Amino acid sequence: MTEELVKAVPNLKVSEDPDNGAMNVDAPEDANDVVNPWTVQTTNDKGIDYDKLIEKFGSQKIDPALLERMEKLTGVPVHHLLRRGVFFSHRDMGVILNQVEKGKPFYLYTGRGPSNTLHIGHLIPFMFTKWLQDTFDVPLVIQLTDDEKFLWKDLKKDDAKRLAFENARDIIAMGFDVNKTFIFSDFQHIGGAFYENMVTVMKHVTFNQVKGIFGFNDSSNIGKIMFPAVQATPAFSSSFPSIFGGKKDVPCLIPCAIDQDPYFRMTRDVAPTLKFRKPALLHSTFIPALQGAQTKMSASDENTSIYVSDTPKQIKNKINKYAYSGGGDTIEEHRANGGNCDVDISYQYLTFFLEDDARLEQIRQDYSSGKLLTGELKQILVETVTPLVMAIQEKRKTITDDMVKEFMRPRPMTTKNFTTPT
Amino acid sequence: MTEELVKAVPNLKVSEDPDNGAMNVDAPEDANDVVNPWTVQTTNDKGIDYDKLIEKFGSQKIDPALLERMEKLTGVPVHHLLRRGVFFSHRDMGVILNQVEKGKPFYLYTGRGPSNTLHIGHLIPFMFTKWLQDTFDVPLVIQLTDDEKFLWKDLKKDDAKRLAFENARDIIAMGFDVNKTFIFSDFQHIGGAFYENMVTVMKHVTFNQVKGIFGFNDSSNIGKIMFPAVQATPAFSSSFPSIFGGKKDVPCLIPCAIDQDPYFRMTRDVAPTLKFRKPALLHSTFIPALQGAQTKMSASDENTSIYVSDTPKQIKNKINKYAYSGGGDTIEEHRANGGNCDVDISYQYLTFFLEDDARLEQIRQDYSSGKLLTGELKQILVETVTPLVMAIQEKRKTITDDMVKEFMRPRPMTTKNFTTPT
Repeated sequence: MTEELVKAVPNLKVSEDPDNGAMNVDAPEDANDVVNPWTVQTTNDKGIDYDKLIEKFGSQKIDPALLERMEKLTGVPVHHLLRRGVFFSHRDMGVILNQVEKGKPFYLYTGRGPSNTLHIGHLIPFMFTKWLQDTFDVPLVIQLTDDEKFLWKDLKKDDAKRLAFENARDIIAMGFDVNKTFIFSDFQHIGGAFYENMVTVMKHVTFNQVKGIFGFNDSSNIGKIMFPAVQATPAFSSSFPSIFGGKKDVPCLIPCAIDQDPYFRMTRDVAPTLKFRKPALLHSTFIPALQGAQTKMSASDENTSIYVSDTPKQIKNKINKYAYSGGGDTIEEHRANGGNCDVDISYQYLTFFLEDDARLEQIRQDYSSGKLLTGELKQILVETVTPLVMAIQEKRKTITDDMVKEFMRPRPMTTKNFTTPT
Repeated sequence: MTEELVKAVPNLKVSEDPDNGAMNVDAPEDANDVVNPWTVQTTNDKGIDYDKLIEKFGSQKIDPALLERMEKLTGVPVHHLLRRGVFFSHRDMGVILNQVEKGKPFYLYTGRGPSNTLHIGHLIPFMFTKWLQDTFDVPLVIQLTDDEKFLWKDLKKDDAKRLAFENARDIIAMGFDVNKTFIFSDFQHIGGAFYENMVTVMKHVTFNQVKGIFGFNDSSNIGKIMFPAVQATPAFSSSFPSIFGGKKDVPCLIPCAIDQDPYFRMTRDVAPTLKFRKPALLHSTFIPALQGAQTKMSASDENTSIYVSDTPKQIKNKINKYAYSGGGDTIEEHRANGGNCDVDISYQYLTFFLEDDARLEQIRQDYSSGKLLTGELKQILVETVTPLVMAIQEKRKTITDDMVKEFMRPRPMTTKNFTTPT
């Protein structure tokens, strides 16, 4: 029996409630690990085998040489999610760095399938994307796929649109700069140059191809079948004339969880035919559910994750009560044998949210040796996550509808490394 | 071997050059008559068997009682294309007339797949639609499917868009009233409420359904697969908030050639699920090629039809040289046996373009009896068609880009029987 992971480094879309009935209809039945935009499953108790995934997907491992080159080019240390291998795989990151080396621009694209509440896993790609934007000082487009949520889930259109707006507010609360960031909802924005590129992509992709890549079948609705074109379109700069003034050759870098790679394999396959540039990618692993790397996330069980709307008390309770422990059964046993960081969820979460490498290493040693108890480790996680969530809640209160609308208005952009052509 | 007819009452799309290679890829291989949006074929030398088609499609025959009811309600004689059975089939025309009887509004929807030049067959649905609009005084939306042309044919996007604009000019030249007519190009207009309805339709139609209806297969591109939703969308009034102010319940009447019915069978099937009204339809037959009811139209042979850009001399030459004659081989034989109006193309064309019923009947008798010679009949056709084409050419010269743009601007409308809700 396969188990589903919480996909908490959530990719460009589906996330905290992969309503199995509706969403797995189109998922291909494969052996062992299953990773696609709708399903992430493994039978391995250590979670997904990411090295195998790299082999299967045909992407590249992010190696020390690549990180070194990034540090040399930017003059700053790489983000801890890169250092720790959360972002572990890529496509063409070298092409992007060549571009930077030549003083030429690129842009960033990421996104989200609107949902009721973000959980802390959802913060990861945006934290990372913000770091990329700050470090490279380039434009960023964020796609909110309200149309996709409507196509895949039992959700009213107005609700999907409302969630897109509310999620935009959450994302803005993470500190994005309006001068460099364009957030758009598909329902609101599709049309014009975007729709034209979308139709171009659709013309060059057959049902056979999407069937193979996404596991669609004859019962899939025709909206789902065409949807991969919607997700491919933001990867081409000519889809955003307000930002790129019709330029077709600004390369795009997409940070996302590895389950979204199928969309961009398709995008990269079709790009040369269209004389567009292939987007580059940075792939991340998934953050496990509180209950452990193998536990099944459930839409009806909000205790499987921590939401950005949770109170400090809720955060503390969830971690203390549910975070799977790799420690001994008794204090005596733990002191004698130490804890297992490989399966301990509190430790795993700290690798995502605790930036200080030295302190993280100390915690690892202390927990492994039995010096640090599970309760103490959980307390460290509470103290790490709570201020992070509170900061977003505070910031969110200050974000007015007009601010959200400004982010969502198509407009020219200027960054240190990019200016909208006139 | 099957032969292809000129589809000169051309439906909502494909028209003078059904590039077989590209367009028939998806056509279902069926016995005898084949009628779908991309192929019209028959082995019958009198052309398509329309009664069989009504049976196959499950539509209704337009009968004298329906025409009588129309005349009673409108106080004017029905159009000659109705009297002569060119528009021969319908769906729910009674529902539209009920609406009129109650003093409630409906609207008209027709369209065209942009192409280089209109031929006289293309004029038929627009002439008829204009009569419907004048008679019922209701809003009309005209869809120019530049996206579809791009998806199906070897045509650049800019060319498809340019052709849409030029065809809008041709259509306007037929005398449409800007106060009641909204012409839109898909590339320009899709987005907003239109895109939302499109996605709604797509959500409720599976690949299985479009495969069955349109004969798509695994090699069809995903744009084609979703395209039926694009053609369905204008049939729902909420797709045009500028005209209908978000009202969902204004019924739609679609005059079109019978080959377009598959799109609207699908549209009518999905409408109740979406709580939209089913569109009503008026179906027309096809106008044959100059060379006869069975001859194959060829994109490379412009002598198969008369274009609205032809000079009087070209029109005269084409008719004299190519119009298939049902007359005797010699004058003597013709005088003795008479001509056969059932296969004579000049006579057939007159049924489309000569409004005077009494004169048409006289011509029929004289030709059948041998009193009227083929040359004389051809001369009558020349004299009927030439002024019609010349009038459009004259009018076309007066239509500025700004006038076209005004037609294509989303805006409120007021007619005697309709006012945009505020």
